Amino acid sequence: MNTFGRLFRITSWGESHGRGIGVVVDGCPPGIALDESVIQPFLDRRRPGQSDLTTPRSEADQCEILSGVFDGVTTGHPISVVVWNTNQRSKDYGDIKDVYRPSHSDYTYQQKYGVRDYRGGGRSSGRETVARVIGGAVAQQVWRRAGGGEVYGFTQAVAGVEYAGCEREFIEENPLRMGDRAGYDQALATVQALKAAGDSAGGVVEVRVEGVPVGLGSPAFGKLEGDLARACLSVGATKGFAMGEGFGLAGKPGSAANDPFVQTEMGIGTERNANGGVLGGISTGERVWFRVAVKPTSSISQRQTTVNAQGETVEIAVQGRHDPIIVPRVVPVLEAMTMLVLVDHLLLHQAQCGDWLGSVGGG
Amino acid sequence: MNTFGRLFRITSWGESHGRGIGVVVDGCPPGIALDESVIQPFLDRRRPGQSDLTTPRSEADQCEILSGVFDGVTTGHPISVVVWNTNQRSKDYGDIKDVYRPSHSDYTYQQKYGVRDYRGGGRSSGRETVARVIGGAVAQQVWRRAGGGEVYGFTQAVAGVEYAGCEREFIEENPLRMGDRAGYDQALATVQALKAAGDSAGGVVEVRVEGVPVGLGSPAFGKLEGDLARACLSVGATKGFAMGEGFGLAGKPGSAANDPFVQTEMGIGTERNANGGVLGGISTGERVWFRVAVKPTSSISQRQTTVNAQGETVEIAVQGRHDPIIVPRVVPVLEAMTMLVLVDHLLLHQAQCGDWLGSVGGG
Amino acid sequence: MNTFGRLFRITSWGESHGRGIGVVVDGCPPGIALDESVIQPFLDRRRPGQSDLTTPRSEADQCEILSGVFDGVTTGHPISVVVWNTNQRSKDYGDIKDVYRPSHSDYTYQQKYGVRDYRGGGRSSGRETVARVIGGAVAQQVWRRAGGGEVYGFTQAVAGVEYAGCEREFIEENPLRMGDRAGYDQALATVQALKAAGDSAGGVVEVRVEGVPVGLGSPAFGKLEGDLARACLSVGATKGFAMGEGFGLAGKPGSAANDPFVQTEMGIGTERNANGGVLGGISTGERVWFRVAVKPTSSISQRQTTVNAQGETVEIAVQGRHDPIIVPRVVPVLEAMTMLVLVDHLLLHQAQCGDWLGSVGGG
Amino acid sequence: MNTFGRLFRITSWGESHGRGIGVVVDGCPPGIALDESVIQPFLDRRRPGQSDLTTPRSEADQCEILSGVFDGVTTGHPISVVVWNTNQRSKDYGDIKDVYRPSHSDYTYQQKYGVRDYRGGGRSSGRETVARVIGGAVAQQVWRRAGGGEVYGFTQAVAGVEYAGCEREFIEENPLRMGDRAGYDQALATVQALKAAGDSAGGVVEVRVEGVPVGLGSPAFGKLEGDLARACLSVGATKGFAMGEGFGLAGKPGSAANDPFVQTEMGIGTERNANGGVLGGISTGERVWFRVAVKPTSSISQRQTTVNAQGETVEIAVQGRHDPIIVPRVVPVLEAMTMLVLVDHLLLHQAQCGDWLGSVGGG
Repeated sequence: MNTFGRLFRITSWGESHGRGIGVVVDGCPPGIALDESVIQPFLDRRRPGQSDLTTPRSEADQCEILSGVFDGVTTGHPISVVVWNTNQRSKDYGDIKDVYRPSHSDYTYQQKYGVRDYRGGGRSSGRETVARVIGGAVAQQVWRRAGGGEVYGFTQAVAGVEYAGCEREFIEENPLRMGDRAGYDQALATVQALKAAGDSAGGVVEVRVEGVPVGLGSPAFGKLEGDLARACLSVGATKGFAMGEGFGLAGKPGSAANDPFVQTEMGIGTERNANGGVLGGISTGERVWFRVAVKPTSSISQRQTTVNAQGETVEIAVQGRHDPIIVPRVVPVLEAMTMLVLVDHLLLHQAQCGDWLGSVGGG
Repeated sequence: MNTFGRLFRITSWGESHGRGIGVVVDGCPPGIALDESVIQPFLDRRRPGQSDLTTPRSEADQCEILSGVFDGVTTGHPISVVVWNTNQRSKDYGDIKDVYRPSHSDYTYQQKYGVRDYRGGGRSSGRETVARVIGGAVAQQVWRRAGGGEVYGFTQAVAGVEYAGCEREFIEENPLRMGDRAGYDQALATVQALKAAGDSAGGVVEVRVEGVPVGLGSPAFGKLEGDLARACLSVGATKGFAMGEGFGLAGKPGSAANDPFVQTEMGIGTERNANGGVLGGISTGERVWFRVAVKPTSSISQRQTTVNAQGETVEIAVQGRHDPIIVPRVVPVLEAMTMLVLVDHLLLHQAQCGDWLGSVGGG
Repeated sequence: MNTFGRLFRITSWGESHGRGIGVVVDGCPPGIALDESVIQPFLDRRRPGQSDLTTPRSEADQCEILSGVFDGVTTGHPISVVVWNTNQRSKDYGDIKDVYRPSHSDYTYQQKYGVRDYRGGGRSSGRETVARVIGGAVAQQVWRRAGGGEVYGFTQAVAGVEYAGCEREFIEENPLRMGDRAGYDQALATVQALKAAGDSAGGVVEVRVEGVPVGLGSPAFGKLEGDLARACLSVGATKGFAMGEGFGLAGKPGSAANDPFVQTEMGIGTERNANGGVLGGISTGERVWFRVAVKPTSSISQRQTTVNAQGETVEIAVQGRHDPIIVPRVVPVLEAMTMLVLVDHLLLHQAQCGDWLGSVGGG
Repeated sequence: MNTFGRLFRITSWGESHGRGIGVVVDGCPPGIALDESVIQPFLDRRRPGQSDLTTPRSEADQCEILSGVFDGVTTGHPISVVVWNTNQRSKDYGDIKDVYRPSHSDYTYQQKYGVRDYRGGGRSSGRETVARVIGGAVAQQVWRRAGGGEVYGFTQAVAGVEYAGCEREFIEENPLRMGDRAGYDQALATVQALKAAGDSAGGVVEVRVEGVPVGLGSPAFGKLEGDLARACLSVGATKGFAMGEGFGLAGKPGSAANDPFVQTEMGIGTERNANGGVLGGISTGERVWFRVAVKPTSSISQRQTTVNAQGETVEIAVQGRHDPIIVPRVVPVLEAMTMLVLVDHLLLHQAQCGDWLGSVGGG
């Protein structure tokens, strides 16, 4: 199941330690301006080696478009894009060939498939998200062309501490991708202390989308929140999803949880957008917003006990190049997944409810 | 998008105030014992009128199998099941025809489709979940036949208070479907006080599945947690999903979040199953468990301000028959969605990784 | 696999000798006028008992809409429609419980599923096509609303003899649904002679669609002819599909097979539309036309040899009520399948290539 | 719509004059031996330049596996394979940029997408079938491992003349891929005469599969013949599909068309396998066989009249490198599509009807 989406679809392939990571984007409308320079900035935000808070594995992660673009625009046909792997160090992984690293997928993989590329986790490597970021970059071109607004995510909590603020321009200025300038120093100190101890930190990402048209999504199994949740929880290391006020909303009485409609100069909206821009599974036209829990990096250099393939208890200290906190690098991936969901629903909406009936008379 | 599942699929139809609610279950293996008496207990657990904590709308909710069963077993063909509506009181809804009730889908529906069955919410009615419960009941027959263990949910939090205990047999003995016997009186008092005030309560449901084989799910877009999240958040009133320790896990350092593998007499497991029975998107063979946030019933009899279709501010007190807390009735729906996901993955797993290669030589 | 279509989808259920036959139509645009009286004429053209050339089994085949329509128009939600079975005579089938009738599906069904409703063929009964005709009737409402032209089929060959003419109005005036008035008497005599001999006739159906917009379909796996072929060959008793001049085109040299483009007052067209209105898998804007081979009714009253479930050679003379020629009753079914394919592609086309980009700016 | 298959899926990308042609094979069982040397012979049978009957465009068509294989076996993850384009001569196509070549897709493409890679037909190029052949090669490894028998196609008719014989070993010995040794000289002379005249020939391909297990396919929309028809008619230049005796069967009376079951030492079979190894949409366990009409190459060097994008009548003589008969090169493509359909159904069958229930008890 390596294809995502109903109409705007990506098919992802590749392993951390194979030839590269690639994606085929299918269903894209024709005539959208696209070349490598459009996609590359999205990859640059995802790639490792950007600060001492990310793995020192340095990959240029240059993308190459192999099909689906002609004269600078999409043709309506499959857009194949690849990022070649250039910095593989397989020797780092030989000693964990038979060890099931705690909270990694080594064990379940081995049990399910019977064969496993133990170098870097195979398909469960975080490197697979390169494909998603490329797909999201293409989706965002369609989204913007259709009149959609900005999508951005930021680190909303670090190591259990929530940070309320969100200065839009600060996000890309700090390696934690926090929005809260005031809380940054504290959060950074926390992460660096954990790193120094051979430990790691988790956190929460908030994603926001502006300029969402009303009417995306559908009741029953096409609810926007369900599709967003699946999209986000298909990213490695994520453990929870909350739409709008999420679990907090569940703790309030109805009289406080309810969010009255109000008439504004922009049209009908709600008082506080508690439901995250979605009601009954369908976008309200307000900001779409949700939060995703990201667990701490499983690979830590502290010694841990676990078992090996022979069922023996062993000690392990995971070597290799790993991020002390993966949260900031998950941000562009979640943005990408969000774009994929929204553009897919945009196309679905045009197909079923667009204003085209009566206009396509035959020749 | 009213079909759910890849191989074991349900197609849901019907409205709260139409002829009935129905479902077509497709892809079910042949030879599974099935008749109405197998399905009915699942519906009885979902239906309203079971206590003074649920809507007094009383529906017998008797199911009728229309196809796909012959001589008491499934035939491998579509199983069509219907529950006829018998207790519709459309007049209750006439006065809200042009009013957008707070936190309801009235507004988004009207904007998207241009036409709307204002009686009971149309497809966004909670009554649509009848179809899911039927589908889940059939799925559970396949699950059990395949050797799968028990699935059950319970109310883990009420109005913001978490209740830690879970006595399995207590769940069906109390109208809140709580598992914590000690906390029950307090939770009940909270809900009754809110009801008396014309208000409502939300909560959290925890779902557990025992006897899950290792190997269900796949990396990338087939992650079990992603599919479970989508399944659960496609149920009305849900706002959040947490796999295993969820958001809590994101707050811990890696050294505490990691969950070492241990060798037990049952085989390889983990110390505390923090990840909810899933690693890398694939089941570990341990209990699958997760939590779902359910917001308080939006329909409350307290006066609220909102706007109508003309954009005028109006006051509304939602009449009709509504549950002061919907959480206990969501429990069997989430169990059903869980079964649908797991059986679908069971079939997917058999198709790709089952032990059948070499055994099907042609004639 | 009882769901057909990508965006405009039908899910079919029911058996010949069960409670009824039904269909759930999903993905239909909202606001399309629909009630039972719109669908019924389509069913009336399909139903048995219309002449002495069809099975004397007489079913009223009255349809009933159970969901998805409100105030006389579609709501955009699943349209569930049922036709209850009223004239089942199961005793006719008891003696063939263990016999594999020649050219029937008895044997393959039994082998695949292990359980089989031997009364009337279960899901392989021609009665299953009731669901398709209903789906096609709904699709046609969308097609017409979108500006599409007429779709009609007719019997183009009977018992190996081709009849070239096609008078549109004659088709529904004769029980063979032939278009060739001059050849009708001969064809009728052929069929009646076969019937008198306890034998049956096959034939070829031609389907035509006028007013098809240019641009439906896509290269690779979305070719219109591939989707039409699958749609038609999913109808029982069909054995071949030819797009436009079909096999005849394969026999000509390129210089004669090629069909030059010409400029007409209607726009660009071709000299003779040899390719059936499709080039490169995409509609040209000309008439879409193709032919489908329908084998003679397998159930004949002449004695035949076959084997039973025990592998013994037995003689059989198929009793029950059967058509001496099924071809005319296949006509409305193929029209329905054609509509389902075209409307699905219409929606797909609007989603990907419709003129909506830039017009949906968020709120 | 560039993905084919339900469980065993291929996603095809690439253009004739872009960087290359590629495919992502998803859903493949793990543990199947695979490397480039397994796939290459399939491509070698498809590639041009093999005789003076194929285009002199010479491509090495060397495949490269980019993912999904580890230690010489499939991993169960996406298998990405690419063939780089090496012999593009874009200048050949500049003069036809604005001309709609007869029976080509130039016109429909332009109308649908508004943008078109006029060099070699873009996605409608025959070169796209490289992706299918690779996918079919992988599928065939699964098919063999599962016990399936041989699949082979051959040219059964050339330029309107049918050739009855089929010597298996002769097929790959002659450039027409005919099975009829006796008729070869005549057929070759016909094609060479057409070529000399700047013309081209069409024909019919017959495909046979041995060792098919009974039970593949399903009634309604999963009929094997429907899926095979769609698969074959999704290949460019194909115009018709006939299952077993096909259109011929439709011309016989039922008493002659019917094909009695007989008991053989191999099990239950039929007298002459008239239905092509399928009854009721499900394989009988006999040879699966069908025929596909292939029109003559549209690109001929004879002068033809057509119109250009401005609607003016122009004369054209298609330059470039083209096959005087495309039929023999379609053979391996149809074999590939057949394998893709059968393996997909094999997996579907295992999922729903495989002998696994009760065997997967959880841990």
